[in-house]
Amino acid sequence: MSSIGARLIPAWLRQYQLATLPTDIIAGLVVGVLVIPQSLGYAVLAGLPPVYGLYAAIVPVIVYAWLGSSNVQAVGPVAITAIMTASALHAYANQGAEQYVMMASLLAMMVGALLWIAGQLKLGWIMQFISRGVSAGFVSGAAVLIFVSQLKYLTHIPIAGSSLIGYLSSMQQYAQQLHPLTLLIGVVAFALLIMNRYGSKWIWRSWLSSSYAKWAERLFPLILLGIAIVLSISMQWSAHGVATIGIIPQGLPAFTLPYLPDFREALNLLPTAGLMALIAFVSSSSVASTYARQRNESFDANRELTGLGLANLVGGLFQSFAVAGGFSRTAINVDSGAKTPLASLVTVLVMVAALIAFGSTFAPLPYALLGATIMASIIGLIDIATLKSAWQRDRLDAASFIAAFIGVLIFGLNTGLVIGLMVSFASLILQSSKPHVAIVGQLAGTGHFRNINRHDVVTYHNLLMLRIDESLFFGNSESVHRRVLEATKQYPEAREIILIMAAVNHIDLTAQEMLITLNQELATQDKHLHFSFIKGPVMDIIEHTPLLTKLSGQVYLSTIDAVDALKEA
Amino acid sequence: MSSIGARLIPAWLRQYQLATLPTDIIAGLVVGVLVIPQSLGYAVLAGLPPVYGLYAAIVPVIVYAWLGSSNVQAVGPVAITAIMTASALHAYANQGAEQYVMMASLLAMMVGALLWIAGQLKLGWIMQFISRGVSAGFVSGAAVLIFVSQLKYLTHIPIAGSSLIGYLSSMQQYAQQLHPLTLLIGVVAFALLIMNRYGSKWIWRSWLSSSYAKWAERLFPLILLGIAIVLSISMQWSAHGVATIGIIPQGLPAFTLPYLPDFREALNLLPTAGLMALIAFVSSSSVASTYARQRNESFDANRELTGLGLANLVGGLFQSFAVAGGFSRTAINVDSGAKTPLASLVTVLVMVAALIAFGSTFAPLPYALLGATIMASIIGLIDIATLKSAWQRDRLDAASFIAAFIGVLIFGLNTGLVIGLMVSFASLILQSSKPHVAIVGQLAGTGHFRNINRHDVVTYHNLLMLRIDESLFFGNSESVHRRVLEATKQYPEAREIILIMAAVNHIDLTAQEMLITLNQELATQDKHLHFSFIKGPVMDIIEHTPLLTKLSGQVYLSTIDAVDALKEA
Repeated sequence: MSSIGARLIPAWLRQYQLATLPTDIIAGLVVGVLVIPQSLGYAVLAGLPPVYGLYAAIVPVIVYAWLGSSNVQAVGPVAITAIMTASALHAYANQGAEQYVMMASLLAMMVGALLWIAGQLKLGWIMQFISRGVSAGFVSGAAVLIFVSQLKYLTHIPIAGSSLIGYLSSMQQYAQQLHPLTLLIGVVAFALLIMNRYGSKWIWRSWLSSSYAKWAERLFPLILLGIAIVLSISMQWSAHGVATIGIIPQGLPAFTLPYLPDFREALNLLPTAGLMALIAFVSSSSVASTYARQRNESFDANRELTGLGLANLVGGLFQSFAVAGGFSRTAINVDSGAKTPLASLVTVLVMVAALIAFGSTFAPLPYALLGATIMASIIGLIDIATLKSAWQRDRLDAASFIAAFIGVLIFGLNTGLVIGLMVSFASLILQSSKPHVAIVGQLAGTGHFRNINRHDVVTYHNLLMLRIDESLFFGNSESVHRRVLEATKQYPEAREIILIMAAVNHIDLTAQEMLITLNQELATQDKHLHFSFIKGPVMDIIEHTPLLTKLSGQVYLSTIDAVDALKEA
Repeated sequence: MSSIGARLIPAWLRQYQLATLPTDIIAGLVVGVLVIPQSLGYAVLAGLPPVYGLYAAIVPVIVYAWLGSSNVQAVGPVAITAIMTASALHAYANQGAEQYVMMASLLAMMVGALLWIAGQLKLGWIMQFISRGVSAGFVSGAAVLIFVSQLKYLTHIPIAGSSLIGYLSSMQQYAQQLHPLTLLIGVVAFALLIMNRYGSKWIWRSWLSSSYAKWAERLFPLILLGIAIVLSISMQWSAHGVATIGIIPQGLPAFTLPYLPDFREALNLLPTAGLMALIAFVSSSSVASTYARQRNESFDANRELTGLGLANLVGGLFQSFAVAGGFSRTAINVDSGAKTPLASLVTVLVMVAALIAFGSTFAPLPYALLGATIMASIIGLIDIATLKSAWQRDRLDAASFIAAFIGVLIFGLNTGLVIGLMVSFASLILQSSKPHVAIVGQLAGTGHFRNINRHDVVTYHNLLMLRIDESLFFGNSESVHRRVLEATKQYPEAREIILIMAAVNHIDLTAQEMLITLNQELATQDKHLHFSFIKGPVMDIIEHTPLLTKLSGQVYLSTIDAVDALKEA
C-alpha cells in the first residue's frame, strides 16, 4: 500500500479484524434505528425541518469515522448544539426558511473551521479551561431552556425568544392558541416516556431480566413513535388540527455551498460559533475520553478537534447543522457491541435507508411527540447532583454552576456561558489574590531566613526583609503593593527594603508597573528597594526593563548577600 | 454637631481650611470653563443632544464631591462611558429621541446601582481582575472606534453601527452625502488641535515659559471654539448647510423618573451595564489611586465604588448619562491647585451658569468642531506604548491587549472587552496548567524526600512517590492525571502510588473528580492510591467526599509514615 493510501485509510480500517464485523453491524443498526426520533426532534429544536436531523447524521458521521479520535463515539445532532443553533439564528427566523437553513449550515462550517484550526494549533488543552461547575451549570440551564422551548409543540402556542423570560412572556401572549388535542397527545407521550425512563425499575425490571429491561427501555420511544403514527392515521389527527411533520423529502443531502451573507453578518456569528465550538469540543471530548479510558486507549484531544472540526466543516457543505459526540448515542453504540467506527458507518446506512424509503412513513407523526421525546430525554441533563456535590466540596465551583445556570436562563446561552466562565476564572484569581507576604529575619549564624512571627530570628534596624510567596500578576499586585507599604510604615526605621523573590515564578506587566511605582514611592521617602533570589526565567523577563534600570537599590543573588552588604551595626 | 450631621457632612468639608479656598475656586473655574467643549462633545458621542453633556457635569459631580473617595478627582462625562452608552443604546436609536434619552439615564442608574451594590459588598478588589494589557487594549480599541465614529460630524455622512466594520461600511454606503464645507471646517480644526497638542514644544514653548505654554495648550481648544462661533455667525455656516448645535435649552437638569421599558429590555441592558460599571470603576480607581498616592492619601476602593455608584444613580434621576473619573480633567484640576472637592462644586457652578446664561452663545457652533475636539483628544488614548512594553516584558499580557483591541474593533465594545478578559484569564490558567510533578525518593536515613533526577535518593521497588507542586484545579487536573498515569507506566512494578500533597493548597471539584477517576483506574490494575501531607484546609474540604471514602489506599500524615507502612523489603 502506498504511503498516501496508508494516510487516507484510517488505522482502524487497515487493521480491521473480521471477528468484530457482526457486532459492529448490529450496533450500527441499533443506533441508527433508535436515534431516528431524536434526530428528527433535534432538527426541530434547531429550528429546522425534521429531515435535517437525518442529514446531520450522515456526512458528519462518515467524516468522523474516517478522522475522529474515538473508535466508539457516535457523533450526530445533539441537544446542546441544536439549541445553540436556534438561539444564534433566532434573528434570522423570519427571513424565510431557505435563508435560515443556509445560515445553519454556514454556522456548522464556522464551528468546524474553528475546531479544525484549534486542532492544527494543538489547542487541545483548551478543554481544561472549562471547570466541571461551569459545564454542568451551562448544560443544566440549556436543558431547562430546551424543555420550555418544546412546550410550543405540546401546546401549539408559538414560542420565540432566546431566554427563559422570552419564552414565558411569548407563551403568555399567545396562550389562547392552545390546542387541546395536541396538548393531550404531548402530555400522554411525555408521561409515558418519563415513566419508561425513570420507572424502568418497576415497569420493565419487574418481569424482564436486567439486560432485556435495558433494551425494552431503549426501544420504547421507537415503539411509541410507531403507535403515534398508527393512531395519527386512523384518527386523522392532522384533520383535527394537530401539526404533523409531513412528508420528509426523499433523497440524500446534496452538496450545497452555503449562502454567503453580508460579511458583517457572518462576522457577527463568529463569537457564537466560537462558543459552540468550545461546547461541542468539551462535550465530545468528555464522551470520547471516558470511553477511551474504559477501553484502555489513549485519548488525543488534538485529533478530536481535527476530526470533529472536519465533520462539521464538510457536513455543513452537505446541509448538516452543527454536530457533536452524544453521550446517549455513544452509550447505546458501546452497549450494542460496537468495536470500531464501522458501526457508525452502518448507522449512516440506516439514515440513508430512512431518507430513501420511509419519507412518507413519518408524515403523520405529530410534532408533539417529537417535543415530548426531547423533553423526556433532556431532563436527565439537569445536573442537580453536580451542583450538590460542588456545594459540599467546592463553593467556588458551585458559584460557577449557579452563575452559568442562572445566566443561561436570564440572558440566554452565550451570555450565560460567558458569565459562568468569568465567575470560574474570577474565583481562581480570588484564590491567589492575597498571597502570603512574610516579614522575615535571619536564623542566627546561618544563611536561612524565616518568618519573624514564627521563629526566633535576628533582624536589623535598617533592613526590612519581605518574602513574597506567590507569582505576581494583575490579580494580586495591588494587594502585595499595599502589604509592602504597610510593612514599611510598621518599620519606619528600615531604609533598605529587600523583597525575597524565591517563590515568584512570574511577574506580569501589571505587577512590573506596580513594582516600578513602589520603587518611586519608596524613593520619595529616601528608602531603597532591593531584590534577592530572582529566578532565572523572571530575570530574563525584567532584565532590561525600567523596573531594574531605575531601581533605587540592588539585585542580590541571595538574601544573605543582601544582608551582608546592607546591614548597619 | 449631631452625629447624623457629622455623617451627612463629608470629612473634607468639616475640616475645611479657608487657606485653600482661593486655589479651590480657581481650579474649579478653570476646569469648568475648559471642559465645556469636551462635555458637549461627549454627549454627542453618546448619541445625545449636546446639552446632556452639561447635565452630566452637574448632579453626579455634586454627589461625588459629597461621597467620593478622592479629594481631587474630577468626575463627569468621559469618552469611554459615552461610547459604551451609544453602543448599548444603538438598537433604540430609531425609536425617537425621547426614549433614547430616557434609556441613557436608565443605563446610568443601572451602572450606578451595580457600582453601589458592589461597594456595599466590598467588591473593591474586583479592579484587580483587569490586567494592564486588557484595559489598555480595550481603551485603545474604543479610542479607534470613537475616532472613526466622529468622522460623521466631519463629513456629514451618517454613520451607524457598533463596530469598526459597521462604521466603515455605512460610510461607504452614504459617501455621496459628503459636505465639503463641513469637512473643511472639521479638518482644519482637527489639524490645529493636533498641532496644538503634539506640536506644543515648537509652537508654544518657543516663545512662552513652560508653565505658560502648558496653559496656552489647554486654553487653545476653548479659543478655537470661540473663533468657530464668530466665524460661523459671520460666514453664516448654518445657511451653507453646516450642521450646528443650535440653541441649548435653558435651565437646569430636572428630576425625571426614567421611562421604565419592558422589563425584558432593561434586563437585556444589564450585562452591558455590568461591563460599563467595571470600566467606569477601573478607570476612576486608576485616576483616584494615582493621585491619592501622589498626595500621600490612602485610596479606599470600596468608597470609590459607593461614591461613583451614587453619583451615577442620582445623576440618572437628573437627566445624566453614565459618568466616571477622567484623567485629563483631574490633571487640570490638580494643576490648577485644587485641594478639596470644593473645586468640583465650583465647576458645577460654571456648568449651571453656562446652562442659564449661554444657551444661545453655543448655537452657531458646528458639530464638526466638537467632532474634531474629540478626535484630537482621543488619539492620546491609543496606547501603543503599553502594547510595546507588554510585548517586550510579558507576551501573554500583549496577547490580552491585542485580543481586547482587535475584539473591540471587530465585534464591538462589549464582546471585545469580554474576549480580552477571557484571554487574560486564560493566559493565567495556562501558566499553572502544567504543574511540576516530581518523582521523589528518600534521602537515606532521613524523613526528607527529593526529586530522583536531582538527588542521590533511596527508592523502593513497590512504591511510586510523586510530589505535586501546585494547587489542583480544572486548569491542570487533566495534565496531572496524565503525568501520574505516565509515571505508573514508567514504574510498572510499583503497586503503591503515594501523592505528596504538601504544596497543594486547594483541590477544586474538577480535580476531585479526576482523583476519583484516577483511584478507580489504578484499582483496576490492582494498584493503590495513597496521599501524604494533605494540608488542613484541603482535608476539611475533601474529608467526607467520595475521594476519601472510596480511596483504595490510605491517607498518611507524612511521607515517611507512608513509606514505613508500605515499603517492601
